[in-house]
Amino acid sequence: MNYLIVSVLTGLLALAFAFMLRNSIIKKEVKNERMQEIAGYIEEGAMAFLRREYKYLAVFIVVVAICLGIFVHIQTAICFVIGALFSIGAGFFGMKVAVKANVRTTEAATRGIQEALIVAFSGGSVMGMCVVGLGILGLGLLSIIFDLNVEYITGFGFGASSIALFARVGGGIYTKAADVGADLVGKVEAGIPEDDPRNPAVIADNVGDNVGDVAGMGADLFESYVGSIISAITLGAVIKLTSGKEGILFPIAVSCVGIIASIIGSIVVKNLKGDNPQKSLNTGTYIAGVIMIIGSAIFSNTMFGSFKPFGAVIVGILVGLAIGKITEIYTSSDYKYVQNIADQSETGPATNIISGLSVGMRSTVAPIILISLGILVAYFIIGGRDDSMLGLYGIALSAVGMLSTTATTVAVDAYGPIADNAGGIAEMADLPEEVRNITDKLDSVGNTTAAIGKGFAIGSAALTALALFASYAQAVNLKVIDLLNPLTLIGLLIGSMIPFIFAALAMEAVGKAANNMVEEVRKQFREHPGIMEGTEKPDYTRCVDISTQAALTQMVLPGIIAVAAPIVMGMLFGTEALAGTIAGAVGTGVLMAVMMANAGGAWDNAKKYIEAGAHGGKGSFAHKAGVVGDTVGDPFKDTAGPAMNILIKLMTIVSLVFATVIANYGGIISNLFSK
Amino acid sequence: MNYLIVSVLTGLLALAFAFMLRNSIIKKEVKNERMQEIAGYIEEGAMAFLRREYKYLAVFIVVVAICLGIFVHIQTAICFVIGALFSIGAGFFGMKVAVKANVRTTEAATRGIQEALIVAFSGGSVMGMCVVGLGILGLGLLSIIFDLNVEYITGFGFGASSIALFARVGGGIYTKAADVGADLVGKVEAGIPEDDPRNPAVIADNVGDNVGDVAGMGADLFESYVGSIISAITLGAVIKLTSGKEGILFPIAVSCVGIIASIIGSIVVKNLKGDNPQKSLNTGTYIAGVIMIIGSAIFSNTMFGSFKPFGAVIVGILVGLAIGKITEIYTSSDYKYVQNIADQSETGPATNIISGLSVGMRSTVAPIILISLGILVAYFIIGGRDDSMLGLYGIALSAVGMLSTTATTVAVDAYGPIADNAGGIAEMADLPEEVRNITDKLDSVGNTTAAIGKGFAIGSAALTALALFASYAQAVNLKVIDLLNPLTLIGLLIGSMIPFIFAALAMEAVGKAANNMVEEVRKQFREHPGIMEGTEKPDYTRCVDISTQAALTQMVLPGIIAVAAPIVMGMLFGTEALAGTIAGAVGTGVLMAVMMANAGGAWDNAKKYIEAGAHGGKGSFAHKAGVVGDTVGDPFKDTAGPAMNILIKLMTIVSLVFATVIANYGGIISNLFSK
Repeated sequence: MNYLIVSVLTGLLALAFAFMLRNSIIKKEVKNERMQEIAGYIEEGAMAFLRREYKYLAVFIVVVAICLGIFVHIQTAICFVIGALFSIGAGFFGMKVAVKANVRTTEAATRGIQEALIVAFSGGSVMGMCVVGLGILGLGLLSIIFDLNVEYITGFGFGASSIALFARVGGGIYTKAADVGADLVGKVEAGIPEDDPRNPAVIADNVGDNVGDVAGMGADLFESYVGSIISAITLGAVIKLTSGKEGILFPIAVSCVGIIASIIGSIVVKNLKGDNPQKSLNTGTYIAGVIMIIGSAIFSNTMFGSFKPFGAVIVGILVGLAIGKITEIYTSSDYKYVQNIADQSETGPATNIISGLSVGMRSTVAPIILISLGILVAYFIIGGRDDSMLGLYGIALSAVGMLSTTATTVAVDAYGPIADNAGGIAEMADLPEEVRNITDKLDSVGNTTAAIGKGFAIGSAALTALALFASYAQAVNLKVIDLLNPLTLIGLLIGSMIPFIFAALAMEAVGKAANNMVEEVRKQFREHPGIMEGTEKPDYTRCVDISTQAALTQMVLPGIIAVAAPIVMGMLFGTEALAGTIAGAVGTGVLMAVMMANAGGAWDNAKKYIEAGAHGGKGSFAHKAGVVGDTVGDPFKDTAGPAMNILIKLMTIVSLVFATVIANYGGIISNLFSK
Repeated sequence: MNYLIVSVLTGLLALAFAFMLRNSIIKKEVKNERMQEIAGYIEEGAMAFLRREYKYLAVFIVVVAICLGIFVHIQTAICFVIGALFSIGAGFFGMKVAVKANVRTTEAATRGIQEALIVAFSGGSVMGMCVVGLGILGLGLLSIIFDLNVEYITGFGFGASSIALFARVGGGIYTKAADVGADLVGKVEAGIPEDDPRNPAVIADNVGDNVGDVAGMGADLFESYVGSIISAITLGAVIKLTSGKEGILFPIAVSCVGIIASIIGSIVVKNLKGDNPQKSLNTGTYIAGVIMIIGSAIFSNTMFGSFKPFGAVIVGILVGLAIGKITEIYTSSDYKYVQNIADQSETGPATNIISGLSVGMRSTVAPIILISLGILVAYFIIGGRDDSMLGLYGIALSAVGMLSTTATTVAVDAYGPIADNAGGIAEMADLPEEVRNITDKLDSVGNTTAAIGKGFAIGSAALTALALFASYAQAVNLKVIDLLNPLTLIGLLIGSMIPFIFAALAMEAVGKAANNMVEEVRKQFREHPGIMEGTEKPDYTRCVDISTQAALTQMVLPGIIAVAAPIVMGMLFGTEALAGTIAGAVGTGVLMAVMMANAGGAWDNAKKYIEAGAHGGKGSFAHKAGVVGDTVGDPFKDTAGPAMNILIKLMTIVSLVFATVIANYGGIISNLFSK
């Protein structure tokens, strides 16, 4: 069986399925004119953002491609451009459909929850299928063209990472600037409800859900997906488990099984009857999981005559699931942590913040232990005891395993913002309360599933980064990365620091952009009193522009840091210092990602818990404190937190792409005084 | 010259100087009866805390000593007990004098700022001299008794670390529980000013300044001080720079010079005339620094015939000073960062918190780069290029250099809470406003100097921990600590996580204790309406009890984590995993320490900046937001932040003490499947 051709075909199949889903959504009619109008604004705003973003991206891609062509290889540059374009493509198609699906979900919600679920989930699935389809298609094609030369194919991962940076960090800044800005003036100052059409920032807020949570998250997982496969094939190229190319082909086969499993799971969700959307989503996810497990066991046995590689794959799936489950414990109001934050809100915002930060920090323990256990088991189960390269390959396989169901993860994750948007449209179009109740129910299901999705995103980022780290060591021919070497040690310290400065810049960007937004909304209210009376239409475009502008300019500096830091460290202090840098960045990056995501989620749900009636309910003193916590949590969970995933993967893949350059010319300063 | 006998004599000299200073303070009379009464409450509360703490400590010391006697050596156990007792002694004497100095500073302030400065600074100097005097005395005596056997002497450092944990973390919980509790009900709910005698928590708050900021900080620096010297003599025992014992004796000599320099500096501060307390403190510090530099250059040249070891010492001093200076930029309202937090307070507490956290994270960059540069220069300047053990010795020497002026650092640091207490007493005793103005001025000088002191504490903790890390590697005979080994990698991940859980526990402890305090104060106000009318005396003792109880019980779990984590990691996964654990903990520990200290300091000063008139001044919307930031910052800068220093030093010294046990019996799990 030619696995590469199969992978190309599987990729095409996923894209065909996505196209089919898209058609099933588009063909639904939207009759309500007001809904059409609002959905039009959102679509327009989202596309305006993308167009502006593409201008920045074009410059970036050309510049980096030229550098790669000069300093690395022209083939790597080609792979880089293709990786970037494919990631852009996944984001573009996914979002294009998401902004059609939102209004159609609202429309469907007028006829019941089951139909609304199907529309929203189909919308999310398009994104999911585009991510995995384009991912495996690109990798398969390039593997055929460049005859499995991993040094070139790494460029594809670099392209994906770069776009993820723009999409996730830029999108994160966009969405939170709009959200915080809309809330601060709308809810707090003007006293109008969320999604009120009189709020000039309301469209920007809804656009933000799409550019941040749909396109940004898709690009993030596209990067993890291809990154994990690349690290596995890089290491698979050098292991001696078989005499053939099975080491390279197995991760590709596993990914293909994952895609097929996801397609079947997605069909199951669409065809299940019943009023419980959570159950439908779970059933689909479980069926996909079972198919995935059986399929990869068969391939493991067929290709290697052993279930050991399959063991490593399973470890990844289990760790991902467990992290997702634990995330729920720390972020759902059914458990004591969120309830405790709500308790602490009784004494005001300060104690709410302190306890939210503690919950976030505390929640790092279990995921870190799970990831550590995963590393150990994956390493030793496959035979790392006798062959360390094989052990590292095991870690890479567990990342591939964790990401094999990416299509479902993305679908479930993208479903959330679509449902959220649908609710916003229902509110703005003044639909009956039952409709809003249905979309709210869909949305709350989305919140739980999104938490699990975040667990997967973080866990897979950690494993992918570590696997790429091993690939890097192999590429620069480091047999040992010694922490007693002062260069490694300073690399570790500086690497540990980078997530802190990156998070600081991301949060400051949200703060600045939100401030601009607040001023604009205040100005519109002041200069056009008709807006509040409902006689005048607010200028939505101006607010969309502010968020767009801020998102794109504010992410330049963090972007430069992420790309330049590994190159600078390598060029100045050599390959071992750079290895230390990556290890440090992965360590604190994962911790900060978990801490920020969970603190943010916990604050959000503590506020909702109070709103549901605890501690005096809406408008109480505790509620005001809860709103403060939620607002602090927004940039945590939707900007800086997810940005950590990108950061650590980007830093490792940059190191891998520039491995040869750094090995040959790096260490300018350290060579002066070390042996 | 017998350096060990000289070191014992220098230690005795420092203690004699401390005794002289104490007498000069005690002999001042306090005539005002109200002041006597209030000071009596504070002294009583502080001593009550210490007595209770000693009961816990006695159990702890006995249990650990028995374990050490059984599993390590009986001599190590003896050194441990002596280290613990000396640390307790330094804290006890220092605080005993601080609670006398506070009221006498108030008294002196009625006669002018210069006299008040001298009393407060003398009070701080007693603590400083006790720390260095007992430190060098203990090390000198034990070196003579055990003939420089570093394996035993390490126990002295472990004893110091254990007490530091109790004093710093317990003290930190105490002081912030009282502070937050007093503020939340007093200032926010009842609307009475700070230090109002009607507030039942006010005495606990003032006691907290002593147990947290005087005794806790003293124990912290006592630990760093002896830890740095121990790591230097451990490494000095194996280097081959000379044929004699100069490697061991040089750090002791440098420390002795530092003590002499500090005594002279302290005399200068006391005898300078003039109205500018900042200038007096600076002049004293600079003179001490110059003497220190000249002295260690002479010893370097005499003992080694080379200025290279002196170079490593100087690096430490410079890095410490630079970190202190940079700390000021991020935490003083003269610079844009604090002003920016104040700006962001205009849109409420949420934006205040976001920008404070960003400032904290951003402020990690420069200190980490400085520490990294320090490591490189110290390593290579002494000859690490050809002999890596020598390079590690250079790092240890730079830690010794940074800490050589500990006496002055502690004096300047302890001076702040004494001035703060003096202000509280003036307020409670209803003294004229001029007196309060003078103590406020002293206090504000203390805030700036305390920031520099915190920079030293963090920088020295990092370098000490890294030097101890190198000593550990040497003790377990690790030639290489390889990050490509999955055991090192999981050690790194788990180690990186420990500061997060530790910080979470410390902050939760403050939250819980503050809540208890709030309830008690509310209850007293409710049940005794006479308190607010000024006709009834509040029950101060009850509040002191609550803080004491909370501080001592809440620190048990973090304490166990700090001591057990390295032992568990080493026993389960072996020496290399433990090395990874330490490296990870030092990396994130330093980052969290800097982040929390600076964010807390910046929030504090942003609030003060608003209170001074910016953004509407006291009572404005921005001010309310500023108060929230300050309250969040309290456990950051005074509990969790400083606890990081202790944590990383304690973890490394535990590893060093148990090195032989772990090397011989460790790796229970990892031995099952690794080679």
